[in-house]
Order: sequence, then structure tokens, then C-alpha cells
Amino acid sequence: MDPIHYDILITNATVVTVNRDFDVIPEAMVAIRADRIVSVGPMPVQGPMPRAAKIIDAAGGIVMPGLVNAHTHLPMTLFRGLADDLPLDRWLNDHIFPAEARHIRAETVGPATLLAAAELLLSGTTCCCDGYFLEDTVAQALATTGLRAVLGQGVIDFPAPGVPDPAGNVAEAAAYADRWLGRHPLIAPAIFCHSPYTCSAKTLVAAKQAANDRGLLFQIHVAETRQEREQMLVDQGKTPVAYLADLGVLDRFTQVVHGIWADETDIGILAASGASLAHCPESSLKLGAGIAPVPAMLNAGIAVGLGTDGPASNNDQNLFGEMDTAAKIHKGISLDPTVMDAATVIRLATIQGAATIGLADQIGSVETGKQADLILIGTARPHLTPLYHPASHLVYAARGADVTHVIVAGRLLVENQRLLSIDGATVMEAVREIAKQLLSF
Amino acid sequence: MDPIHYDILITNATVVTVNRDFDVIPEAMVAIRADRIVSVGPMPVQGPMPRAAKIIDAAGGIVMPGLVNAHTHLPMTLFRGLADDLPLDRWLNDHIFPAEARHIRAETVGPATLLAAAELLLSGTTCCCDGYFLEDTVAQALATTGLRAVLGQGVIDFPAPGVPDPAGNVAEAAAYADRWLGRHPLIAPAIFCHSPYTCSAKTLVAAKQAANDRGLLFQIHVAETRQEREQMLVDQGKTPVAYLADLGVLDRFTQVVHGIWADETDIGILAASGASLAHCPESSLKLGAGIAPVPAMLNAGIAVGLGTDGPASNNDQNLFGEMDTAAKIHKGISLDPTVMDAATVIRLATIQGAATIGLADQIGSVETGKQADLILIGTARPHLTPLYHPASHLVYAARGADVTHVIVAGRLLVENQRLLSIDGATVMEAVREIAKQLLSF
Repeated sequence: MDPIHYDILITNATVVTVNRDFDVIPEAMVAIRADRIVSVGPMPVQGPMPRAAKIIDAAGGIVMPGLVNAHTHLPMTLFRGLADDLPLDRWLNDHIFPAEARHIRAETVGPATLLAAAELLLSGTTCCCDGYFLEDTVAQALATTGLRAVLGQGVIDFPAPGVPDPAGNVAEAAAYADRWLGRHPLIAPAIFCHSPYTCSAKTLVAAKQAANDRGLLFQIHVAETRQEREQMLVDQGKTPVAYLADLGVLDRFTQVVHGIWADETDIGILAASGASLAHCPESSLKLGAGIAPVPAMLNAGIAVGLGTDGPASNNDQNLFGEMDTAAKIHKGISLDPTVMDAATVIRLATIQGAATIGLADQIGSVETGKQADLILIGTARPHLTPLYHPASHLVYAARGADVTHVIVAGRLLVENQRLLSIDGATVMEAVREIAKQLLSF
Repeated sequence: MDPIHYDILITNATVVTVNRDFDVIPEAMVAIRADRIVSVGPMPVQGPMPRAAKIIDAAGGIVMPGLVNAHTHLPMTLFRGLADDLPLDRWLNDHIFPAEARHIRAETVGPATLLAAAELLLSGTTCCCDGYFLEDTVAQALATTGLRAVLGQGVIDFPAPGVPDPAGNVAEAAAYADRWLGRHPLIAPAIFCHSPYTCSAKTLVAAKQAANDRGLLFQIHVAETRQEREQMLVDQGKTPVAYLADLGVLDRFTQVVHGIWADETDIGILAASGASLAHCPESSLKLGAGIAPVPAMLNAGIAVGLGTDGPASNNDQNLFGEMDTAAKIHKGISLDPTVMDAATVIRLATIQGAATIGLADQIGSVETGKQADLILIGTARPHLTPLYHPASHLVYAARGADVTHVIVAGRLLVENQRLLSIDGATVMEAVREIAKQLLSF
């Protein structure tokens, strides 16, 4: 009989499993074979260590599930820091929309996506949910990186990059989805309607139907600004959430993004529908959009994930920062330091984020049988010393730069903070060249 | 004649000067001789480079003034992550106060201070303003690290570490100050009254007098919680700020910490008095204390610095995170994305922070004649690419871990992210041992 043999064995780790009981296992090891976790438990007190093709000594560091970025716009990495601190209309009309119209093309989206992937991996994100245009190109680029992703082709009733005639927007999204369904083990297509005020009722219903026909996630920005809510009340006599519910597009395959201006009734509607929420606290603060009522949503049983939103409005894609902000902001505005505790926030960034995109049975926790999507955080650093409670450090003290190793589907993508699947220097140089062209306009 | 010769020359940098006009100089160099900046300007287009004992090639990175942490409690680094997510009274009475009573001693404060210094330096802070007990030990430890500091001995009308009899608290603080006045070029003593509700009027007046007699900074927590404000209105018929103003302890040598519950009248009082404010956004959020009205304070002309507060309530001492949070939180609650723009926030973390502790003529900007306290941020990283506006990146995308070099008073303390003046491994091990004892109680 062959001795036990693994592909990867992580030793000497504290494992924050994020299983149902939020078990934290000290002095533990995690064994991986092919794309799966096949064993999680204490190190052997005596006897030989299991054999493995690759052994990673965590040296007392923390293993946790890879982070799930529940909402971003990867190609907008091109516009990171292009314009800040402006009124929303000037930011959009004078900077972002013109830049998108001029510079979002297949030749720019590829490098931008690779750069975003580099940023995500280096800061511990193993799975992201994107929504943008030219998603075919996004998918092709991501497929080379080893990241896991749900990628939604954008639908909007205006001319958009790659979709000059909005009359074809749903058909384009459906065709994209058909090209990617079952094509790559780590990439799932989705359909992303921009919002209830930029898509007609007909578009929303058709897009949702196209998603349902294929078993796809349907994503949509909802109730992001007070103005959106007020305008919808004028135009439709309903809140954005109630409007979407009445159109029949809210169900457990729908991920609502932002939901900042959801009121108590809206929260009840969302909970009853089974729709999930992507909470993007830093982007919503920076744009002056507000703060989503996440504690109330969690109390109502809504699955809530954490997203960074696009780097044009954040300006990074680092979920460690997002965890810290999510934990603190809700305490600060409610004057209650007990809301959004560390374990809750870690769940948002992992298993709940996975739930919002339909992957909670595959990823989001370090458990036997799950996909081997996990990260290692080095703790022998001044800002992580002393270490009393691993969950506390992950939220309140650790940063993306503390991630040393990243594994997705059993494949090592970051080792000792170095990217293994992306040529970072080449990708950065390509994006710098695009940025130069952008500034020359 | 000797050719021009410098001690340190930083080349190929983008310099965010934080001078009066917030000039940003691309392709620049900074020359340092002894403890001072002697030249800041563009690289020579032709002709020889100046000579220097040490040349640091910034390789296109950003040089900015070293960050000024306007408020912290360094020895509380021992309690980082010890207890979180609890109601304030349980956090204090069940965890922090007992831990302080049992574990704050000269033998623990020394290693804790060194650990804090390591964290501060590695994340780009070159000067901190501390307030705690056993400040003699804090000063002795910091004097070995090369950090610049204003260190306030705590005054409180209860028994405290090193001050068992509160009747002697002001005399102890004065004696400490006398021991450190003029003793070390980088360390200035100060007096730190804990708060208007834990110090009697007599204590407050005597402590302020002792500070004034010696030309020292006087620090005090004020209006941190709603409860403090309400209790003061009951007990004194005045807000905490008005109470302190009437006692005569607010002037331009007083740094008010927090000020969260300052109302419009209080802001007017603070502005008229010349007192400054230390804004600690992350700690105040995490404790559920609230959000200080900083935009209104800035409009009133109050000098505002950024502080981390102690690591028991943050849980780090990383001003890059604090800048990001300060820029975003005020936008989010006012629904105005134009408040607290990147330049404003950088000023808070540098020149204005220096102003709150009386050092704005010496530090806080990269200008000829000032003390050479500056940091270098490496920008060849995915999350800092592309780079359109250096100030935007410093606030919204850069993190403490991006700091590669730190210079204080012309001395290189961090080089390529390695500490030169502190043995980080030994210090971390010492604090881990203390943490073990702490947990064994």
C-alpha cells in the first residue's frame, strides 16, 4: 500500500477554518491533493509526518480561506486614482465616462485585468466577482492567472465598450455566457445589469431570464445613492428594491450590490426573496454614497459578502482593508462596539461572500472536501505581535501585505509574497503605457 | 574649495513636499547633511551628480515627510487584540484596567515601547506623541530607536502604574519633565491629563500650570463619548470643552484628543483658544465612540493631527490606514465626496500633526532647513499602478508596508523595509513572553 502522499502540505499553522462553528485549530496542518483539501487537523504529536510533494512551513502563521471579493470592476484598474474627491456627477461625466469611452478596448482590458489579478492575489483574494464590459477579454486574461472568478458581462441601455448598440445588450451577455459555460474549471460567467435606472424594465426582465435559463448569477447595483432612491420613488412610486422585486428579478441567484439606501421594508423584501448583498464599504464612503445597513441585513438573514468595488472608487482591491473598515464603520455610526465582530466580518469576506455568488459549497472555508483555496498570513511581524486571538488580528491588524502564500484549487499562485502565475513587472509596464496614452488626451 | 558633499542623497524621487503650496516635484532629489534637509529640487539635467556618503535611489518612488502620530499609548502595544467587540465598560473593567494593573511595569513597558517603535518605523511614522504612565521608561526605550517623540506622563486621580498615590500625580509628571527637558535632541517631555472626568479641576489646573511653567505640551482626552458629554452637562452644567475653557487649560499649548462630541459652540471655543486636536478615527469607530466633526474643525481654523490611539483599541499604529479612513469616513457620513481631500489628509498626518505638538517649524514637510524626517514609498507595485496623482496614492492606495526607507533627523532607521536601529526579532520574542504571562492570569 502506498503511504499517504499529498500534493501540498502546510505545517505549523493556526487554522482559522471559518467552518460552521468558526473553529480555530492551533498547531495544525492542512493537506491538499489535486484541487481539494483532504485533511485539516492538529500536527502529529509523534510518528512520521505525512509525505507531500510540496511542504510549506507556516512557522506559526495563520491559514484561512482565500478571500472572496464579492464585487469589483477589474478593468477599471486602469483608472485607479485618476480622479478623486470630486462631486459624483463631475467624477463620472468629466473623468470616468470619457476615459471608458476612449480607453476601454480589448487591448487595454487584458493588461488591466492581469494587473488587477496581481493585486488581488498579493493581498489574499482567491476569488472575485466582476461586472464590466468586454468580459470575454477579462475571462481570457484571468484564465491564465489561476484565480477563481465569476465574471458578469455588463448590460446597460446605453452604448458601452464592446456593445455599441444597446438593443443587443442582453443577447451579447447571453452569447458571452454560452461561450464560457463549462469552458474553464475556475471561471463562471454571469450577467450584470448596471442598475434599475440605467436598464429598462424590459432589459432587466430579459437579462434575468437569460441568467435563469443558464443557471447564472445575476448581479445589479441597487440603491447606491439617495438620489437613485428618490428618483425611483418619483418615477415608479416604489423604492429601487421594491421595483426590482415587483419585476421578479430578485431571487437567490441575484446579488444586489451596495443596497445603501435600503430601508426596513426593503430589507424584508430582500430577505424574503433570497437575494444576497455585496457590501462595498470603502467605495461607498469615498464616493459619499453612504453606509449600507449591514447589521440589520445580517439580522434579517441576508447573505452579505464584502467587495472592493472598482479601483477607480476605492482605490485598491485589498479585502483586508475592507474587513477592517467594515468592522469599524458600523460600530462607529451605531455607537455600538459589539456589532460586526471579527468573526462576522471574516465570514463576510469568505464563506458569505462565496454564498452571494453561489459557491459556498465549494469555497469559503478550510474544510475537508472543499476546494483548496486558502491563504497563509505571516504573523512574525511587529504589528501582529503579540497575538492573542487570530480572528482579531485578521480583521484589525493584518494587512494584505502580510499574506505570504496563496493557493487556488490546489495550485500555488503566490509563494513568499512572489507571484508565480503572473509576470508582475511586465504587466505593470503595460498598464503604465496605457496610462500615458490616457493622460495624453 | 571642497565639492558639494552630503551625508545622504535621495535621487529619482517624486517629492510630495507638503510645503505651503503642496508642491509635488517629479524627478527630484533631496539632500541631507547632518540632521537637516539642505536641498530639495529637480535632478540635474546634465553635469555631475552631487557627492554623498550614502545615495538612495528612489527609482521613481515617492518621498514625503515622515508621518506624525499625534496620539498613541505605546505601552498598550502589550494589549493589542487582547479584547475586542465588547461594550466599553466590559472592555475597560474586565480586560484593559486589570491588565494594566497587573502587567504595566518598567520591565514590560520597555519591550512594549520598542515593539511599538518597530511598528511605527516600518509603517512610515517618524514622530509620535505618546501619553501614558511610566513615561520615564518609555523615553529611555525610545531614545535607543532614533524615533522623534513627545512623551506625556499621565496624570489621573486614581492609583496608576508608577504613581500609586494620586496625590502626587502632578508632582511626578513635573519631576519626569524636569528629568527629560533638554536631555535628548529627539525627545520632548509633556504632561498628559487623562480626561476632565478622571482628573479634578484642581488637578487639571495644577497640571496645566506645571506644563506652562516648563513650556510643555499639555494633552487631554476630551469629549470622547456621548456619555462623557452628558455626564459633564449634569455635573458641571457645561460641555467638557466649555468646562476646560473655563478652567483656563485650553490654549495653543494644549492638544485636545478625540473631541468627538464637540458641538458648534465647542468648536468655536477650541478655535478661539488656539488649542489643537488629535483625531483618531479608527479607534473612535472601533470603540463605538463616534466620529469627530473634523471638517467643521478645519473650517474653524483648528490645527488637526491624526493619531492611531493605542493598539488596544485600533489595533495597529499604522498612519497610512488612518489617512485612508480619515479621508473616507467624513465623506461617507456627510454624503459629500469633496470633503477631506487627499492633500488635506496628508497635511493632517504631517505638518498639522506636527503643529498639534509644537513642532511644525522643525518637521512635517520636506523643505530646505527643516529636520530630515522623511520616508520613501516604493511605487513599483501592482496596487500602486498606474500612478496619476502621488497624493491620491498616498491616501487611497499606499499602505504602511509600502514604506521602504525611513530617515529621522538625518539618520537612516529603515532601509529596504529592514529596521536598522531595533532588533525586531528579539523585541517580538520579549513581548510574546510577556503576553504568555498575561494570559496565565
